[in-house]
Amino acid sequence: MRAAVMYGAGDVRVEDRPDPKIHEPTDAVVRVLRAAICGSDLWPYASMPVTDQGRPMGHEFLGVIEEAGSQVPGLSAGDLVITPFTWCDNTCDFCRKGLQTSCRHGGRYGLGGVDGGQGEAVRVPQAQGTLVKLPVAADSALLPSLLTLSDVLCTGHHGAVKAGVSRGDTVTVIGDGAVGLFAVLAAHRLGAGQIILMGGHPDRTSLGRDFGATDIVAERDALVAAFGAVGDGGVVSRLGVPNYAEGPVGPAMLLRNITLTGGACPARAYIEELMPDILDGTIEPGRVFDRTVSLDQVPDGYRAMAGREALKILIRN
Amino acid sequence: MRAAVMYGAGDVRVEDRPDPKIHEPTDAVVRVLRAAICGSDLWPYASMPVTDQGRPMGHEFLGVIEEAGSQVPGLSAGDLVITPFTWCDNTCDFCRKGLQTSCRHGGRYGLGGVDGGQGEAVRVPQAQGTLVKLPVAADSALLPSLLTLSDVLCTGHHGAVKAGVSRGDTVTVIGDGAVGLFAVLAAHRLGAGQIILMGGHPDRTSLGRDFGATDIVAERDALVAAFGAVGDGGVVSRLGVPNYAEGPVGPAMLLRNITLTGGACPARAYIEELMPDILDGTIEPGRVFDRTVSLDQVPDGYRAMAGREALKILIRN
Repeated sequence: MRAAVMYGAGDVRVEDRPDPKIHEPTDAVVRVLRAAICGSDLWPYASMPVTDQGRPMGHEFLGVIEEAGSQVPGLSAGDLVITPFTWCDNTCDFCRKGLQTSCRHGGRYGLGGVDGGQGEAVRVPQAQGTLVKLPVAADSALLPSLLTLSDVLCTGHHGAVKAGVSRGDTVTVIGDGAVGLFAVLAAHRLGAGQIILMGGHPDRTSLGRDFGATDIVAERDALVAAFGAVGDGGVVSRLGVPNYAEGPVGPAMLLRNITLTGGACPARAYIEELMPDILDGTIEPGRVFDRTVSLDQVPDGYRAMAGREALKILIRN
Repeated sequence: MRAAVMYGAGDVRVEDRPDPKIHEPTDAVVRVLRAAICGSDLWPYASMPVTDQGRPMGHEFLGVIEEAGSQVPGLSAGDLVITPFTWCDNTCDFCRKGLQTSCRHGGRYGLGGVDGGQGEAVRVPQAQGTLVKLPVAADSALLPSLLTLSDVLCTGHHGAVKAGVSRGDTVTVIGDGAVGLFAVLAAHRLGAGQIILMGGHPDRTSLGRDFGATDIVAERDALVAAFGAVGDGGVVSRLGVPNYAEGPVGPAMLLRNITLTGGACPARAYIEELMPDILDGTIEPGRVFDRTVSLDQVPDGYRAMAGREALKILIRN
């Protein structure tokens, strides 16, 4: 099969890889229909040391089951499914608490012999716990919106949930990337009264208004800005991997009773909850995709996202 | 009147001060019956630069109203009252949210011309919002336990509340000072299943067992220990002023979905909630006082607490 592999910063190649096969009875092989390039893929794209082996890329995809292992009773060949961006058994103690990112038998795509999602097919471990069936046809116009359930939509939602957003709250979202825009959408969906979006790209903040932002502040900053924006007793909820090891958690944070939360999104916990709003048209998260590429054009997609020419890239196989 | 004043690290003196008088119609003057030395008083005791003016000390006290201003309709001379460790109007937007430590018209004892609690009398600003009547006689044996409502009991409770402790939870409390012991008591009161107390003083951890600790770990450490002890998806709730400006809030905290919370306790928000458990004997927080001194002996009390000879000092006027 063909798949995207990163060999170092700025070096993504689409090349031949072995066709995925069932290794464990809990595996399934998924033929990918749609995938995406994630903001987090841009971190290794900016900084990954050169390697001979390469790393298969991509963790957001949906597709059709090609083969299911003997211990995947809920799925059959031909089923259209979506994956959260980490795989999980969905039965361990962490999964039962809705923290599938900490699953005791889970893991990440593109590592340890597991394929990435930016390719023609993927062997999905723990397929029974990981994959969720999509109740639409394989040519549905909703596929781009449904694809956002794999990561970015759920991640924005996770930020709002961890922040404890409830009806009438004032919410400030820092950053107008796809995750920031979905944090706006999620805060709006949870009933926030005022949603201030801090971002520097007019086309993105404009989409943010459509998603529910009531105010736009033309800035984009980091944790210090968040502590400046939050009120006493408020919550700073972070998404995405920080590019710092230490933060300002000294006396001022304590005296003001500020909470710092957020984290890697257990997307598996939210897929069923958010999907109905996509199916009935209440939300249209697929609007974040402003460019579509073929698998062979994935290297161009990385360049466009890294150069901020594109907000988010849809890969159509 | 006589009152304790700090003139620098290690230098607490009991001296004559002007008798407090009503300045504002929202003031009340309270004749102090019982006060305490707080763990936070030990910070300036260890580090305060030498000053000529001195700083009146103490923020935990209860006593009898001597005079109430014209805008303090709920209180009269002779009422037995307790104060939270900060004064507040209890009507502003922050107070209404239960965050009286951020009151827009509030402040701290011993600063800006307001007396400290380690003295014979105190002018209490915003007395109507600040003071809470105690439904016992001035010679009640419950006074030491009721005094803990001023700060330490509520502070331990605040830590457990901000941590979201609920029935069956596993809680680790780091530190066996009075606040740590009350965090144990509060976690137990909120139904925690397992309560691990990390502390190095056998007499204190023994009291911790009486307060509800199920396990004792003979260690005492800081924020790094907390991040080590907490499970994925768990909450680190801090109390007391940190002696660091930065903390380890980088990728590991995010990937593990750890929340960092806690803060200065809005004791005023909890006094009415916790008082009944003292009045009916369900809890006996006064057991943390292991030494009683007179006002003139307050300097000895500081020495004993700073030297860890005493857990917490009760001042009996």
